[in-house]
Amino acid sequence: MTTLAVDCMGGDFGPAVTLPACRRLLDKRPDVRLLLVGQQDLLASFQHPRAEIVHAAEVVAMDDPVEVAMRHKKQSSMRLTLEQVKNGRAQAAVSAGNTGALMAIARYLLKTLDGIERPAIAYPLPNVKGGATTVLDLGANVDCTEHHLLQFAVLGSALDAALKSRDNPSVGLLNVGSEAIKGSEMIKRAGELLRQAGQSSVINFYGNVEGNDIFKGTTDIVVCDGFVGNVTLKATEGLASMVSTLLKQEFSRNLLTKAAALVALPVLNAFKRRVDPRRHNGAALLGLRGLVFKSHGSADAMAFEYALGRALDAADNQLLDKIQRRVQQASALF
Amino acid sequence: MTTLAVDCMGGDFGPAVTLPACRRLLDKRPDVRLLLVGQQDLLASFQHPRAEIVHAAEVVAMDDPVEVAMRHKKQSSMRLTLEQVKNGRAQAAVSAGNTGALMAIARYLLKTLDGIERPAIAYPLPNVKGGATTVLDLGANVDCTEHHLLQFAVLGSALDAALKSRDNPSVGLLNVGSEAIKGSEMIKRAGELLRQAGQSSVINFYGNVEGNDIFKGTTDIVVCDGFVGNVTLKATEGLASMVSTLLKQEFSRNLLTKAAALVALPVLNAFKRRVDPRRHNGAALLGLRGLVFKSHGSADAMAFEYALGRALDAADNQLLDKIQRRVQQASALF
Repeated sequence: MTTLAVDCMGGDFGPAVTLPACRRLLDKRPDVRLLLVGQQDLLASFQHPRAEIVHAAEVVAMDDPVEVAMRHKKQSSMRLTLEQVKNGRAQAAVSAGNTGALMAIARYLLKTLDGIERPAIAYPLPNVKGGATTVLDLGANVDCTEHHLLQFAVLGSALDAALKSRDNPSVGLLNVGSEAIKGSEMIKRAGELLRQAGQSSVINFYGNVEGNDIFKGTTDIVVCDGFVGNVTLKATEGLASMVSTLLKQEFSRNLLTKAAALVALPVLNAFKRRVDPRRHNGAALLGLRGLVFKSHGSADAMAFEYALGRALDAADNQLLDKIQRRVQQASALF
Repeated sequence: MTTLAVDCMGGDFGPAVTLPACRRLLDKRPDVRLLLVGQQDLLASFQHPRAEIVHAAEVVAMDDPVEVAMRHKKQSSMRLTLEQVKNGRAQAAVSAGNTGALMAIARYLLKTLDGIERPAIAYPLPNVKGGATTVLDLGANVDCTEHHLLQFAVLGSALDAALKSRDNPSVGLLNVGSEAIKGSEMIKRAGELLRQAGQSSVINFYGNVEGNDIFKGTTDIVVCDGFVGNVTLKATEGLASMVSTLLKQEFSRNLLTKAAALVALPVLNAFKRRVDPRRHNGAALLGLRGLVFKSHGSADAMAFEYALGRALDAADNQLLDKIQRRVQQASALF
């Protein structure tokens, strides 16, 4: 039996999304218990033999500054969710709340692993091969050194090994060209360090990759600093949203195009399913002494259920042990 | 009469693409003269009263290292094309050749403008408003300071003012959040400097923007360092290519989906026209003492004609004067 702690108040929709997702997960997976953290009166209607409600009087708002969440909301559902992992009552925590606050509180409560200076956020982006490329860091660390990037490579490798059952996932360094001489000064040093780590089999280093390789699925993992990762993620979200808006506009232009839309709908839906970001929801906060997953704030119940599923898979596949072993192997290079 | 110098040998296809594009531009625009630079025997068949062939014995290959292009190919079509601008025979140069070599030779031959430390590459990306957002730098400068970013903001403002007839185009600073406290240390300093420039009306500074704002068209111009710009551009190209591949796969799955494709084709084509990157082909190399435009290497004749058109518009709208005036206004802040 694996227990997950769920911040039921986080995200744009709170219990309206998180509770139905929890219900579906419990129905599908008889091996899971849930600690539902949030305001008692809002959660009380949820009854299930494998669910327990943990009352939290406060809620971290999506736009709360990190300091407010940290210092003035010590009874928040986010914090109490993370405390379930800290005190060993749950094997992983899931929240759709404010990313900055979640990372800060997780870091404060759980602490980072020995050898890890900074936790990272790893996010799976769909690729043309039908899988997902794990990209990190996606925003936790905007100023990075080459040692941070090596730590991200090790953390990402452990994540992929646990979630994709891939023993030796390949790691690409995000750069402006494939040749080793390319890139900023920091990126060149990172390339050197990652090559050393590859030679000593700490990671399976592929070499430099470029922005388009994320969607080609050239490597299992792509590492970058959090500034580049965040901008890239949001730019691709922006492009995807533009494509969707313009397709809808064209298909609703007149009666003829609306008829065409009806005919094309099953195909367009099949396409949408293949790139549906909800199927990849659930970013991992890596490098902490505990498993924490972050759902997209705008997730619907299906997307939130995927995030719960990823947290469960991570716990069931001993992600934390795998990370600790890999970090130890790599520690000479850190 | 405006004269453009055209590197007819550059790009993946050389004269097979560049010559038809030149022919079409000459047919449409009676006010333009072209200097066609390349190997005489390959260009000799092109006859037009407003075209003149300039023989160049060598060609810079798409994969030539910058040093080879600079030192060992002094008679390359790329270099001779730029020399037409340097010696005043042409008002702008266009090449689809190797970007690194083009920038290096352009910088060596033409020099940068007073007050500009580094030229930048500005590229228009289509936005959901139906226009294009000018993004710079897209790869010329991987290590930047806040002063470089201010210079890019000034250069981009002059470009938009010239090409979009917009007096006071808005500038966004690409960042990981909209608040001024967000970002790396360099980006925070850049934000401070750009705000100062906005207060003294050197630019029309909007504030921070995020990756998705590029495609929303939140601002006319988005500035970033060349590392972030290059990765973002290639990531969005990769996503666009994935979307196109998966759509084609779904529509060609079976007889039924192929029939749906036939019905949907006019709509899909209308959609494609709206996001067609060929209509925005032609990156500007800004900050030099001469106008240079770079076509995508894989451009077809239609795309290359757009690049020629942008160079022509830039020359006709006195882009170089506009840049010089703006750089002078801003020089106190550089």
